[in-house]
Amino acid sequence: MMLRTLPARLLVLLLAATPAPTLAEESPMFAIAIHGGAGVISRSSMTPEAEKSYQEDLGKALDAGYSILESGGTSMDAAIAAVKILEDSPLFNAGRGAVFSAEGINELDAAVMDGQTLRAGAVAGLRHVRNPIELARLVMDRSPHVFLTGKGAEDFALENGMPLVPRSWFYTERRWQQLEQARRGERLSAADIGYYGTVGAVALDAAGNLAAATSTGGMTNKKWGRVGDAPLIGAGTYADNGSCAVSATGTGEFFIRGVISHEVSALMKYRGVDVAEAARTAIQGRLAAMGGDGGVIVVDREGNIAMEFNTEGMFRGARDARGKREIAIY
Amino acid sequence: MMLRTLPARLLVLLLAATPAPTLAEESPMFAIAIHGGAGVISRSSMTPEAEKSYQEDLGKALDAGYSILESGGTSMDAAIAAVKILEDSPLFNAGRGAVFSAEGINELDAAVMDGQTLRAGAVAGLRHVRNPIELARLVMDRSPHVFLTGKGAEDFALENGMPLVPRSWFYTERRWQQLEQARRGERLSAADIGYYGTVGAVALDAAGNLAAATSTGGMTNKKWGRVGDAPLIGAGTYADNGSCAVSATGTGEFFIRGVISHEVSALMKYRGVDVAEAARTAIQGRLAAMGGDGGVIVVDREGNIAMEFNTEGMFRGARDARGKREIAIY
Repeated sequence: MMLRTLPARLLVLLLAATPAPTLAEESPMFAIAIHGGAGVISRSSMTPEAEKSYQEDLGKALDAGYSILESGGTSMDAAIAAVKILEDSPLFNAGRGAVFSAEGINELDAAVMDGQTLRAGAVAGLRHVRNPIELARLVMDRSPHVFLTGKGAEDFALENGMPLVPRSWFYTERRWQQLEQARRGERLSAADIGYYGTVGAVALDAAGNLAAATSTGGMTNKKWGRVGDAPLIGAGTYADNGSCAVSATGTGEFFIRGVISHEVSALMKYRGVDVAEAARTAIQGRLAAMGGDGGVIVVDREGNIAMEFNTEGMFRGARDARGKREIAIY
Repeated sequence: MMLRTLPARLLVLLLAATPAPTLAEESPMFAIAIHGGAGVISRSSMTPEAEKSYQEDLGKALDAGYSILESGGTSMDAAIAAVKILEDSPLFNAGRGAVFSAEGINELDAAVMDGQTLRAGAVAGLRHVRNPIELARLVMDRSPHVFLTGKGAEDFALENGMPLVPRSWFYTERRWQQLEQARRGERLSAADIGYYGTVGAVALDAAGNLAAATSTGGMTNKKWGRVGDAPLIGAGTYADNGSCAVSATGTGEFFIRGVISHEVSALMKYRGVDVAEAARTAIQGRLAAMGGDGGVIVVDREGNIAMEFNTEGMFRGARDARGKREIAIY
């Protein structure tokens, strides 16, 4: 299956490379990692049922992305497929299930980046786009721009054949209660997982190309047209075949100020550290020193994955062509 | 005057440092650089009168910022003072004199960043804020957020005591003609200096702190709520006392994809190159390789200034405590 989808020239190269090809040469590496937000996620605050629901939806997203990679698809297709499932799940703060702004409206942001071409697409302040990650890709593919915002971005969606949905699509009772709590000035309780949540995916495909995708509903009770790090290239989302693909989640303002996703890439590129050390340095060093909370998922061109966070938990998953498959919360 | 404004402890340190203090220890370094946009600015397309007007307004902005530094003010105050003058000048594509969007509206973006604290403020899609750079600073100083957009950002302005102005404030006949030309699909003529223009300033103050400020009207005939690099921390604006302060101008989409301002900082920090080589590598290497046009101004903590661009010209100026004062276009 996989061999059939490889370009003929690459196949010849692989077969001709050495008299006794190693495993790595026979089977190209591919890998995907996903996250569903980081924050105060303690074991004691989770029921076994809730834990199971999160694990199930994370697993579905991970496997949907992985199966695209396995059948020779691109890292961009894989990352977007995974993020779409998390957007459509009411559990995560993106798409359906997004948190409410101070005006009682769901406002959605997303970005994608292609590591091979350094092309990117981003959208912010959407109110009627079911899958913001798909509009981010449309911006990348069909506009001369990188970043479209608000009603203008939705006009672009309609002009390019993407239907809009009523605001009721995004409504969930749980998020509405969180807004009511925030409006009353109450501290959020254990049920507030995902207060700062965001979803994302990073992938390496068999052709060796990296991609990153991130989508979010922002923060509960946000005001003044606040935009966080998710749609900002370099802050919440970054991909460069020369280093790695990154998707972030956490207190967005700190990720913006630290340009955290591009920082991970720069550490690999210019300091020469590996993916694990770059992620650790950016999160446990730079981000933590600023007082920020959250995490990143990172994959490099060898399929090495880092999932680093300085919070109690981060919903996450990773799967690769070597047979690794992991879903974790704490 | 300057000595009086130094903290007593620092003064003692300076006086006690060596029996024979060098010039550098006696006179702390401070410096400022500004830009007014990069692009197709050929000598043949400029009348001597136009050239003189640009040089005059650049000089006013440069000297306003410099005099703040000279009297012991902060790099943030200096950078903002310079940018305000360029925003108020009808010559540059920021504030008054901004280009028109496809809807015939001036939409303004700006950002500031403080290199000492890595705090930042940014605004996009403003229609009624006379000096967007001042609102960016207000976001930094008085909101828990970094990036506010659209009407929400203007609500924040009013709530924090900043008046709004009618849209007519930003109208200039020249920019309106450029929009009409663009709508007719005409190629822009030599009079279209500043089509992609942006203004910005970077400064080092006597206390050794860096700051960056950037403000823009975006691009003529822009649609769909397009936001460029200027308000994006790491793309068009960046400051970190650990490396340098950067403000960019050019084809914004490429500066976003290349995270060019943070790239300059990362090259200094992690590759250990100086400010000139970092700016050159980012613009002549990375940006040019992507097909992007434009430039950056950069200052480091020793007051070294780089003004690098790959276009025919960049309106720019630099002045420092060693007595250098330079205004240039080509």
